[in-house]
Amino acid sequence: MRRAATWLADRVRAAGLEAELAETDGHPVVVGRWEAGAGAPALVVYAHYDVQPPDPLEEWSSPPFEPTVRDGRLYARGAADDKSQVLLQIAALEACVRTTGLPVNVTLLLEGEEEIGSPGLPPLLESRPDIRTDYALIADSQMLGPGRPSLIFATRGLAYFELEARIGRHDLHSGQYGGAVPNPANALATVIASFHQDGRIVVPGFMEDVAPWDESLLEGFRSLPFDEAAFRESAGGAALAGEPGRTTVERVWTRPALDVNGITGGYTGEGAKTVLPAVARAKVSARLVANQTPEAVERQLRDHIAGLPPAGVEITLRTLKGALPWRADPSGPLYRAAGRSLEAVFGRPPVHVAHGGTLPIATEFERILGAEVAILGFALPGAHMHAPDEWFPLDHLEKGMKTMAGLYAELQC
Amino acid sequence: MRRAATWLADRVRAAGLEAELAETDGHPVVVGRWEAGAGAPALVVYAHYDVQPPDPLEEWSSPPFEPTVRDGRLYARGAADDKSQVLLQIAALEACVRTTGLPVNVTLLLEGEEEIGSPGLPPLLESRPDIRTDYALIADSQMLGPGRPSLIFATRGLAYFELEARIGRHDLHSGQYGGAVPNPANALATVIASFHQDGRIVVPGFMEDVAPWDESLLEGFRSLPFDEAAFRESAGGAALAGEPGRTTVERVWTRPALDVNGITGGYTGEGAKTVLPAVARAKVSARLVANQTPEAVERQLRDHIAGLPPAGVEITLRTLKGALPWRADPSGPLYRAAGRSLEAVFGRPPVHVAHGGTLPIATEFERILGAEVAILGFALPGAHMHAPDEWFPLDHLEKGMKTMAGLYAELQC
Repeated sequence: MRRAATWLADRVRAAGLEAELAETDGHPVVVGRWEAGAGAPALVVYAHYDVQPPDPLEEWSSPPFEPTVRDGRLYARGAADDKSQVLLQIAALEACVRTTGLPVNVTLLLEGEEEIGSPGLPPLLESRPDIRTDYALIADSQMLGPGRPSLIFATRGLAYFELEARIGRHDLHSGQYGGAVPNPANALATVIASFHQDGRIVVPGFMEDVAPWDESLLEGFRSLPFDEAAFRESAGGAALAGEPGRTTVERVWTRPALDVNGITGGYTGEGAKTVLPAVARAKVSARLVANQTPEAVERQLRDHIAGLPPAGVEITLRTLKGALPWRADPSGPLYRAAGRSLEAVFGRPPVHVAHGGTLPIATEFERILGAEVAILGFALPGAHMHAPDEWFPLDHLEKGMKTMAGLYAELQC
Repeated sequence: MRRAATWLADRVRAAGLEAELAETDGHPVVVGRWEAGAGAPALVVYAHYDVQPPDPLEEWSSPPFEPTVRDGRLYARGAADDKSQVLLQIAALEACVRTTGLPVNVTLLLEGEEEIGSPGLPPLLESRPDIRTDYALIADSQMLGPGRPSLIFATRGLAYFELEARIGRHDLHSGQYGGAVPNPANALATVIASFHQDGRIVVPGFMEDVAPWDESLLEGFRSLPFDEAAFRESAGGAALAGEPGRTTVERVWTRPALDVNGITGGYTGEGAKTVLPAVARAKVSARLVANQTPEAVERQLRDHIAGLPPAGVEITLRTLKGALPWRADPSGPLYRAAGRSLEAVFGRPPVHVAHGGTLPIATEFERILGAEVAILGFALPGAHMHAPDEWFPLDHLEKGMKTMAGLYAELQC
């Protein structure tokens, strides 16, 4: 991580900006600075250099840490999330510094802890009053589709838990004990199964915190072209299913979800081992929309589980991470400047879309920096973020740079 | 496996018997022979030299394949199931051959595939008409407790499955797809949770195949001393729970069970990875009592699962192994001879108990060899069979040998 940060700081200096490694309790933040002058608007550009684990390794078509170009796409872990977008931001700044000049005060924030919930960034920003800004641009997202520039209107929050079911200290012979001791894996299944009924989340209180969306916004979502076949193909051929009475786009952009991310317990090797597991564990996470909070969801799950059978199994819930949901201000100068620049580069106005994933720092930038926050990104749907064969469209490196150059100019107006 | 079989054949020869490796499609069976003469009764003594996998390795107090004596117990993988019992059978034969003489025709069958359901043994026996016998003793079980010699009256059968839930070809980003695609781990949990209700198995047809037990037998079971605290301690501190209205002993000896043996899917490493799994799998097995069969249970589970939601998840069920339940003939010469010899060695008559585990070859010995089958063993409860820190009581090596020597003499009478 430190080698990556040092490389990045050198790259930012090579672009003509000042750069430093700002220390946190975890991985350092690369801070780049460009002073355009006291009268110029101040812009923070944020991206991240950390990535998700590459496993399962055997499902990659080319090694995850050897960038490989196939059919105009760059394949690698982090190609879309978020290394290509880090580089195009630096390249855009460099291009302006070296040619027309850079007309805005820029603070480049490249962090190394986005994938673990950005624990170090808010404390760093709070301790650095020199980093205050009018605008904060988060360069970590995707477009609606090829040739369809997009501005992110909202992101979902996250509440991520580990759920453990335990009966004792060691696994048991299923013949000697089967039927006479409770089974923690069966119990865990019962707990997980109780979260949904007929496609709806039925954990008491969970859906009550979901604030209604503006009806015109939902109308806009519904009128967007949606290629169901392409979405399914991007999902590895999965069927589409979810909350009744909602479209796929609504489900991902405007509704919460409660999913198992992983589950394990007992014997998972080849063949048949006749044990009863002593313990079974699941990683379970909720995607949140306003006004849900990770704290409230933890409380709701805890209360719900406490009311469930079966006796004799100790069920524990532990929060691994959390992030608030976020909504943009479509009337803000940054949002509108980004929209005009996108239109100039792509030849059509951006669509206003939401993002089912989480960008934990959006609400933190509003709170700490006092900034208008916008989210702008150039990855494409089906980019396999967090999964094998992640990719980024090569031509979007240049389109992204041009959009940023236009945005600097728009902000100055 | 072959090295173990070769070592065993040498050991049997050293005991004064003839020995050969009888080949199967898998691991060889060590066949030892002693001819006492045409008028002598014929006894097959069966045990197995294969063992369960040793994992989880980190939970062993001493290495699983380095036999270690602590407090009069021999600790090792296979100490109880079944290597100590293999050795005490050979030693008992050797002692008689070298001293008083061995008055019965003996065929020693030591197989290497018991833990995978003995696929090679029945075909071998069918192809070897020279191995026919009056009596077949299965030396692979345990006593009710220290000083409480026991004869096994019944064993449960087994129907072991792998259950897979799949939505597509690769894991998905939980932000981009969460709520819009079905989750195979949640679906698998729903399937597993549907197997039980209020402690009872509710898969249609499953309980209907359970034949009632003789009421006097149940009375005998209920009058046995049962040390609940010791049973719980042997179960790693687990609470006791199961089918309502049944004692723990009844649940293990006379009632079926349906348990998850292992479950896995999605991200199971450290920390929080925000994926939706493409696939989740569980190993699920039923312990059967007469007149259940693995084939009927597979059909019942398949029909039950076919009737469940959720749409969009492909659920498949695959049988990994199966074995019929078995009941002894308490009026048979072998059963009674074993009882008298146990009483002579331990100073009290044996109790008639059942065994919750599976001995797949019991029904096969009846069918192929035309033999009366009895099951006799010297391990103790809490021996951690199939689990870390498996052990066997050292003094039972000698008590087991003496019991066998007495049994040879009783059979001859």
